[in-house]
Amino acid sequence: MEILAKGFSEKEFEKKCAIGRAAARLFDEKGYLETSLKDISAAAKLSKGGIYHYFTSKHDILYFVLDNYMDLLVQGLDQEVREIPDPAMKIRYILFRHLKLYNTKVPEAKALLIASRNLPAQFFKGIASKEKEYAGLLTEALAEYFGGTVPLVRVKAISYTLFGMCNAIMYWYNPEGPIPLEELSQICHDIFMNGVSSYRTGNDSPGLTRLCAP
Amino acid sequence: MEILAKGFSEKEFEKKCAIGRAAARLFDEKGYLETSLKDISAAAKLSKGGIYHYFTSKHDILYFVLDNYMDLLVQGLDQEVREIPDPAMKIRYILFRHLKLYNTKVPEAKALLIASRNLPAQFFKGIASKEKEYAGLLTEALAEYFGGTVPLVRVKAISYTLFGMCNAIMYWYNPEGPIPLEELSQICHDIFMNGVSSYRTGNDSPGLTRLCAP
Repeated sequence: MEILAKGFSEKEFEKKCAIGRAAARLFDEKGYLETSLKDISAAAKLSKGGIYHYFTSKHDILYFVLDNYMDLLVQGLDQEVREIPDPAMKIRYILFRHLKLYNTKVPEAKALLIASRNLPAQFFKGIASKEKEYAGLLTEALAEYFGGTVPLVRVKAISYTLFGMCNAIMYWYNPEGPIPLEELSQICHDIFMNGVSSYRTGNDSPGLTRLCAP
Repeated sequence: MEILAKGFSEKEFEKKCAIGRAAARLFDEKGYLETSLKDISAAAKLSKGGIYHYFTSKHDILYFVLDNYMDLLVQGLDQEVREIPDPAMKIRYILFRHLKLYNTKVPEAKALLIASRNLPAQFFKGIASKEKEYAGLLTEALAEYFGGTVPLVRVKAISYTLFGMCNAIMYWYNPEGPIPLEELSQICHDIFMNGVSSYRTGNDSPGLTRLCAP
């Protein structure tokens, strides 16, 4: 939307998306550093000048790819989660949605995992802020699940461990491998939910004591 | 050792380490892409020619940093883990050691997490092979812990989720933040061990069924 507001028509936006997709695939295959604008223009079947009509630099293309992917992750999630009454189901929903979206946009997701840190600070800031918003929705669901027993700063740390698990799955997952993504998502979910359930039910494991310490 | 065999004296190796450390700090602060050999030579208080005496390129420096960090992670671990009789304690040992080493070499660990994917394939291969060896030790401990109930390919996936959690902690951790690394390690440990314990004790949760499916 923001992009459209910058004076691009829908058709031009689609063109940007096509260039972004071609670039993301190259970043994944060759690495961000090794991918040149020339490579991108060849893959997108445009002249280098054609690319410059849409983007100012390789960083600009990466930013566009990541920004759109973050929008895909964030947009609507707040509302979707709000409509789920059970907090455990909210966490499950976020986890499965995270990995499902990954599966539809593997090069873009990998660009976020791997290439995003190559963005100069002023570009990265915008992405990091959307990441924060996204992580915040999981933190909220977790806080609700814990029922106020765990201090927020620890809930935040715990939400990062779940994203860490999911992202490790994304690195590890091979569509031709022996375990389908759905099953890997389930493994991730079961370990995490089994793992945090003891913090909720109020048993006095050493872990709980530590989590609840001031 | 390999480096020494390449004809570098211990003193020269130390010099390489000092350059590597200065470079890793810059990679962390400025990003790998944005760091030039000129920046590294200034930080290491050497001329650019001085750097070229020790390294052929920026990739070469990054490779050296990562290779040494991987050695630090891998070397001795096999023996250390072998001496721990209880498999749950083995897992605990690997996890705490992973995060403790991180804490002594933050720029190097961050280079592994963030910059390593910028290495050209022929460089990255050597690092990836050491990563595989390292992950294999956790997989072995987990397989022992599960007592043969979980197929190896699933144990592997589970070991990656644990590394994912640890690495998320490494991204998230701020030495000046409200939670010390020791406590974050404990949170990670408790969630993971609570999480996987049900796969060991043979309860018939849906998670277990799925993990044990052929």
